[in-house]
Amino acid sequence: MTPVADYFAPVREDLRGLTANLKNLIGAKHPILYAAAEHLFEGKGKGLRPALVFLAARATMPGGDITPRHGRLAEITEMIHTASLVHDDVIDGAEVRRNLPTVNHHFGNRVAVLAGDFLFAQSSWYLANLDNLEVVKLLARVIADFAEGEIQQSLTAYDTGLTFADYLQKSFYKTASLMAGSMKAAGVLSDLPLSQCDRLYDFGKHFGIAFQIVDDILDFTGSTESLGKPAGSDLKQGNLTAPVLYALADHPELATHIEEGLTNPEDLALVLERVRGSGGIERSRELARSHSRLAAEALAWLPVSECKNSLLGLTEFILERMS
Amino acid sequence: MTPVADYFAPVREDLRGLTANLKNLIGAKHPILYAAAEHLFEGKGKGLRPALVFLAARATMPGGDITPRHGRLAEITEMIHTASLVHDDVIDGAEVRRNLPTVNHHFGNRVAVLAGDFLFAQSSWYLANLDNLEVVKLLARVIADFAEGEIQQSLTAYDTGLTFADYLQKSFYKTASLMAGSMKAAGVLSDLPLSQCDRLYDFGKHFGIAFQIVDDILDFTGSTESLGKPAGSDLKQGNLTAPVLYALADHPELATHIEEGLTNPEDLALVLERVRGSGGIERSRELARSHSRLAAEALAWLPVSECKNSLLGLTEFILERMS
Repeated sequence: MTPVADYFAPVREDLRGLTANLKNLIGAKHPILYAAAEHLFEGKGKGLRPALVFLAARATMPGGDITPRHGRLAEITEMIHTASLVHDDVIDGAEVRRNLPTVNHHFGNRVAVLAGDFLFAQSSWYLANLDNLEVVKLLARVIADFAEGEIQQSLTAYDTGLTFADYLQKSFYKTASLMAGSMKAAGVLSDLPLSQCDRLYDFGKHFGIAFQIVDDILDFTGSTESLGKPAGSDLKQGNLTAPVLYALADHPELATHIEEGLTNPEDLALVLERVRGSGGIERSRELARSHSRLAAEALAWLPVSECKNSLLGLTEFILERMS
Repeated sequence: MTPVADYFAPVREDLRGLTANLKNLIGAKHPILYAAAEHLFEGKGKGLRPALVFLAARATMPGGDITPRHGRLAEITEMIHTASLVHDDVIDGAEVRRNLPTVNHHFGNRVAVLAGDFLFAQSSWYLANLDNLEVVKLLARVIADFAEGEIQQSLTAYDTGLTFADYLQKSFYKTASLMAGSMKAAGVLSDLPLSQCDRLYDFGKHFGIAFQIVDDILDFTGSTESLGKPAGSDLKQGNLTAPVLYALADHPELATHIEEGLTNPEDLALVLERVRGSGGIERSRELARSHSRLAAEALAWLPVSECKNSLLGLTEFILERMS
C-alpha cells in the first residue's frame, strides 16, 4: 500500500506552509485556541482536503504555478472542515477522534463551540476577501450543506425507512459537498472554463461519496484502535449507512432492534454481527468503487501531470483503506 | 415613555413579513428547529436590528421604496443576531433569556449548537446570493467580530486590568459591529455614495455602543424580572463593564474580590452593592448619552422623513431604558 504522503509529494511544501499559516492564524488569538489549534492541525491524517485543492490548482495552472488565492482557498477549506468536526463532536457528544480526545472532551463544550465559531467566522472573512463572488457562493453552499447534513442525520436517526437516495444525499452534505465545492473553486481561481470547473466539482463529489462510504464500511470492519474511535459508533448513534441499508434488505428483522434505539449493548452487538456477516459490506465496497471510478473519469480532460496522477492515485488509495 | 412599536411604525409591515419569512426559512427543515424558531423569533423585544435596517433602507431610497435585497439583508441581520445569541447562551451556560428558557436549557446543547450553526450557515448562503461583494465583506466582518468578542470576553474575565478602550472594543464586537455593518450595507444596497454609507456605519456603531452600555447598566440597576435573567449575571460571569470599571477607580479594594472569581455569593453581593452605590452608574449613563448623541449626529446629512425621525427617536428611546 502506497503511503498517502507519496500522493501528496507534489504539494508537500504547499501543505507545510498551510499548517504553519493555520496555526498562526488561529493560535495567535487566545491561549486555549492555541492549544486547540495545535490539537486540531497536528493530528495524523490531516490535510486531505487542502491537498486536493493544491493538486487541482497545480494541475490546472500554466506551468503548475499557483496563486496566493489558491493557497488561501486551501486554508479556508481546512478551516471549514475543522470547524465542522469540532461542532460535530459537540453535537454527537464524541469523546475521541483519531485516538485523541475531542476538543469538547478535552476543553469542554464552551471552548469547542467558541473554537468552531471562530474557525467558521475566520473562514467566512477570508472567503469574502478572495474577492470572487462565485467562490464565495460555492463555499457558502458547502457551509449550508454541513448544517443541512447534521439536521438530516439527526432527523433520520434510527429510521430504517431511510432510502439509499437519502443516504447518498446525507453523505454528499457531510463529506462530498466540501470536496466538490473546493475543487470547483480551485478551477474558478485558475480561470478555467465553466465546463471544466464542473468536472472538477464532479471529481470532488464522487471522490467524497466514495470516501464516506469507505468510512462507513470501516465503522463495521475496523478495530477501535485503527479507527481512532469506538467501532460501531455510527450505528450506535443511529446513523444508518450503506452496510446497514444493504443488510436490512436481507434481514428485515433487524429493523426492530434498530428502531428501538440500540440502547441495549446486546442489541448493538447483534446488529453489528449481522451486518458484518451479510453481503452488505461487499456491496458497499462495490458502491465505493463505482463512485471512485466516476471521480477518476471526471478528470479525463485534464492534461497529464504529476498532480493529475496524484489525484487519480488518491481515488485508488481511498479504496485500499477498506480492504 | 413612547412604546418602541411607535418608532417601528413606518416599517411595521416589513417586520411582519420578516417574522413570517424567518419562521418559514428556519422552521421548515426540522420539527425541533421549528420549535426553536418559534421560540427565537417570537420573543418580546425582537426586531430592533431588522427595524434599523428597514428604517435606513426606507430613509435612503427614492420615495421610500425598498428593494427585495433590503428585505433579505434585514433577515440576514436577524439570523446572524439570533445565531450569536443561541451560541452565546451555550458558551455562557445561560438558562434564561428574556424570561424564557434558552435553547440550550430547553432543548439541550446539541440542538443549540445545531440551530446556531444552521442559522449562521443560512445567513452566509443568503448573504452570498445578495450578489454584492461589498455587502458580503461587511457582514463577514460582523460574524468574525462576534467570535473575536467572545474570545476577548473569555480572555479578560475577572481581569480588573481591563481598560476602557478594551471595554469599548468588546462592546463594539458583541453589539455595535452588527448594527454598524448592517446599516452601512443598507446604504450600499441603496446605492448611496461611500461617504454617506460610512455615516450610516457611524450611526450603527455609536447606537450599538450606547445600547450595550445601557444593557450593562441594567445588569446593576434592573430587577431579575425586568431583565428577564438574573440581575448581576454579567458581573458573576466576570464580564467587567462600564459601571464596574468606573467603580474600581473609586474603590480599588474591589479588585481583589473580583479577581478571586466572585464564587462566594457574599463577595458578589458586596461588589454589586458597591457598584450600585458608586458614581459609576451615573458616569456610565453619561457615556451612553454621549454615544447616543454621536449616533444622532451621524444622520445630519439625511433628508427629513418619518423613517429618519424614527431612527433619531430610537437614539433617545434606548436611553430611557436606563432611567
